[in-house]
Order: sequence, then C-alpha cells, then structure tokens
Amino acid sequence: MNNLERLSKTLGYTFNDINLLEQALTHRSAKSVHNERLEFLGDSVLSFVIAEKLYAQFPKCKEGDLSRMRSTLVRGETLVELAQNFKISDYLVLGPGELKSGGHRRNSILEDAVEAIIGAVYLDSNMDTIKDLILTWYRSRLETLKPGQSQKDAKTQLQEWLQGRKQELPVYQVEEITGKDHKQTFTVSCIIDDESSTLGKGSSRRKAEQEAARAMLNQLTS
Amino acid sequence: MNNLERLSKTLGYTFNDINLLEQALTHRSAKSVHNERLEFLGDSVLSFVIAEKLYAQFPKCKEGDLSRMRSTLVRGETLVELAQNFKISDYLVLGPGELKSGGHRRNSILEDAVEAIIGAVYLDSNMDTIKDLILTWYRSRLETLKPGQSQKDAKTQLQEWLQGRKQELPVYQVEEITGKDHKQTFTVSCIIDDESSTLGKGSSRRKAEQEAARAMLNQLTS
Repeated sequence: MNNLERLSKTLGYTFNDINLLEQALTHRSAKSVHNERLEFLGDSVLSFVIAEKLYAQFPKCKEGDLSRMRSTLVRGETLVELAQNFKISDYLVLGPGELKSGGHRRNSILEDAVEAIIGAVYLDSNMDTIKDLILTWYRSRLETLKPGQSQKDAKTQLQEWLQGRKQELPVYQVEEITGKDHKQTFTVSCIIDDESSTLGKGSSRRKAEQEAARAMLNQLTS
Repeated sequence: MNNLERLSKTLGYTFNDINLLEQALTHRSAKSVHNERLEFLGDSVLSFVIAEKLYAQFPKCKEGDLSRMRSTLVRGETLVELAQNFKISDYLVLGPGELKSGGHRRNSILEDAVEAIIGAVYLDSNMDTIKDLILTWYRSRLETLKPGQSQKDAKTQLQEWLQGRKQELPVYQVEEITGKDHKQTFTVSCIIDDESSTLGKGSSRRKAEQEAARAMLNQLTS
C-alpha cells in the first residue's frame, strides 16, 4: 500500500482521482499546483455541513448558540486535532523553507490541509458523500456538544468576565504584521485599563485577538 | 394573488410550505417564531454556493482573489440590494419597536431576511434548487465580476493606501457597544497617527470597522 492509499484509508474515503488528494496535501511553498484553492472551497463546505447539522440537531437553540457551536467545531484548534488524528503531517508536501517551521505556522498548515482535503473529497464525489464523511469525523464531538457557556470563544469569555466585575472592556491593538501576502503573522495586544496587557499571534487578526484574549483570561484567573 | 404569492413570484421560487417563507420574513421583535435560525442556515448555504461558483468560474484565480470576490458578493451591501430588488421591506413582519427603526438597523434587518429566505428555500427544497435560484439572483453580478483590486474591502484598501505612502497602519478601537445580546450596535473609531480619526457603526465589530475605514478613505482621498 502506498502512502496516499494509507491516508485514504485513515480518512475513510477512496479517491477516484488521487491527484486531488495529493494537491490537498501540497503547501504553496512546494510547487505551483498547491492546496490554497481547495482550502477555500473546503472551508465553505465544512461550514455549511456543520451549520446544517447543528440546525437539525438542536431545533430549540437560538442562532447565537448555533453560531458559537459552529465556531468551536470549525476553528483552527479542532482542525489541528483532526489533522493529528489523521497524521496529516506525515503526508504534507512542503517546500524547503517550511520543512523546519514550527509552532503556529505549522498548525496553520495542518488546518489548511484538512480544509483542502474536504474540498478535494467534495470535488471528487458530491455533497452527500462529503457530508457523511465530515459527520463521521465529527461524530464524537457532535455527540458531546452542548449549547451554552463552554462554546464561547476567548474574547467573549473575557468580555463577560470583565463585565461581571464592572471593569472596562479590553482594547485589541495590532502591534505587528510580518510576512507577505496571505501568509502574514499578526501580533495583537489585549489591553485592559491601560494597566495589564497580553500578546497573541496568529495567521489572521481574528486569530491573534483570540490568542491575546486567552492569555489575558489565563493571567486574570490564575 | 396574496402577498406571499406575489413575493414568491418575484423571488422565482414557489414554496411547498409557505410558512417557511413567512418565518423568513419575521423579525425577532414580532414573535417567538422568527427568522434568526433560518438566517444562520441561509448564510452558510449562500457562502458555500458562491464559493463553489467562483471556484469553477475562475480556475486560475488564487485563493486571495476568490475570498475577496466572495466577500463582495455576500456582504451586507449586496444583500441589501437584493432585498431592495425583491421589495422585501413590503413583506417584513416587524414588532412595534422595529417599525420605525431606520438606517443601518433597517439594512441589517433586510440582509438577515435575504439570508433567512435562502435558508427557507433550502429547507423547502434541496441544494440543487437553492443553488440555481441563488445563481439566477446573482447572474448579472457574476457576469461583471473581475478578480482584482475592486473587490478589496475598505480596511484592505485603506491599509494599502497608507502603506503606499509609508504611513503608519490604522488602529481600530471599539468606542461604544449599545443594545442587548445579538442585536448590539458597535461604534468603532479608525485612528491614524493619533491625528485624524473617523467613526463607523454596525451590527458587528467587523462591520463597524469597515464603515470607519470607508469614512477614513473618503476623508483622505476627497
């Protein structure tokens, strides 16, 4: 069994066109046919499939709870967990510069690859097939999911924590943007009352803000 | 022909369950069965349908261009235009408090209703049907769409304008949040070099930032 056949087995889907899977694993640093377009498509497929499932699974939930649950299920951390379950990093096709990159850069490559695989399966099959596959991947997460508090993201949790103590809301400020084009790294500070501040980094401003908020929550509650 | 039949004709879709259309037009201020859950579902259907179409229509476009084109097509302004074409405001079911609300509150009600109608059509039919309908609604926009500059949102345009002049990047700051729960209004300032600032309002932080950036662009380039 070759590499990609082994991965197909782990994923639970056999490709008609195995080149699509190879493309989904190929980072833009490696060659000109890479996974960014598949990632764009896969991201929206995943978001729709999860939205539809939550809509059906929680008929009494309000829109706010549905949105929060979806955020939890499609956010980077969850995609990295999936990538780790599938051992995606054993199969990635990276350029020389990316081979040794670590930390959040590596995580963002893993997230992107999972979304690209979703796009690839969809193109190789149809909506019903990718829907079944995604729901299989997410089965245990969907079974244990509960509407409410735990779904709230770090910025929301921080805001509520501060409001509960009648403190000022935090201010988020972009401190630094490094890297070119769509591979930028944002550094954002979370500042409270001009007194304490934390930093967060991420591949988007939104992600960096969440990281900074998480660091602030840790600081305040530890 | 009753009201909802007339609207169905304008939309180009006849509902099996007309109650779904009525629900899609009902704002949460009016009654307990309102359109927020349908809006959640419709938003993700729209985003997926547009992503898939752009992926197919522009086989050589990079992910960044595809994302920008999608943002243009699914953003509030575009949805408000659709709502105006369909004369949605003649059919909205609003509570007493909302009947006289104007400006961006009214626009956000129109946007939400369009997304809710998309969710309602999808539930009433299937993916192929809603896909055809959305692509009909968007036909002229899709025909005139070009990858590149014009798709960039206000924050991106402002950032590039400033970078081109070697000026500092803008800072966005939340100045005020009013309203409860998911019906909040955010006021955000866009500050450049501690010298000039503009304000933007919107139903989310992101939207308010875009408005503030647009105001700053106008100020700088007029």
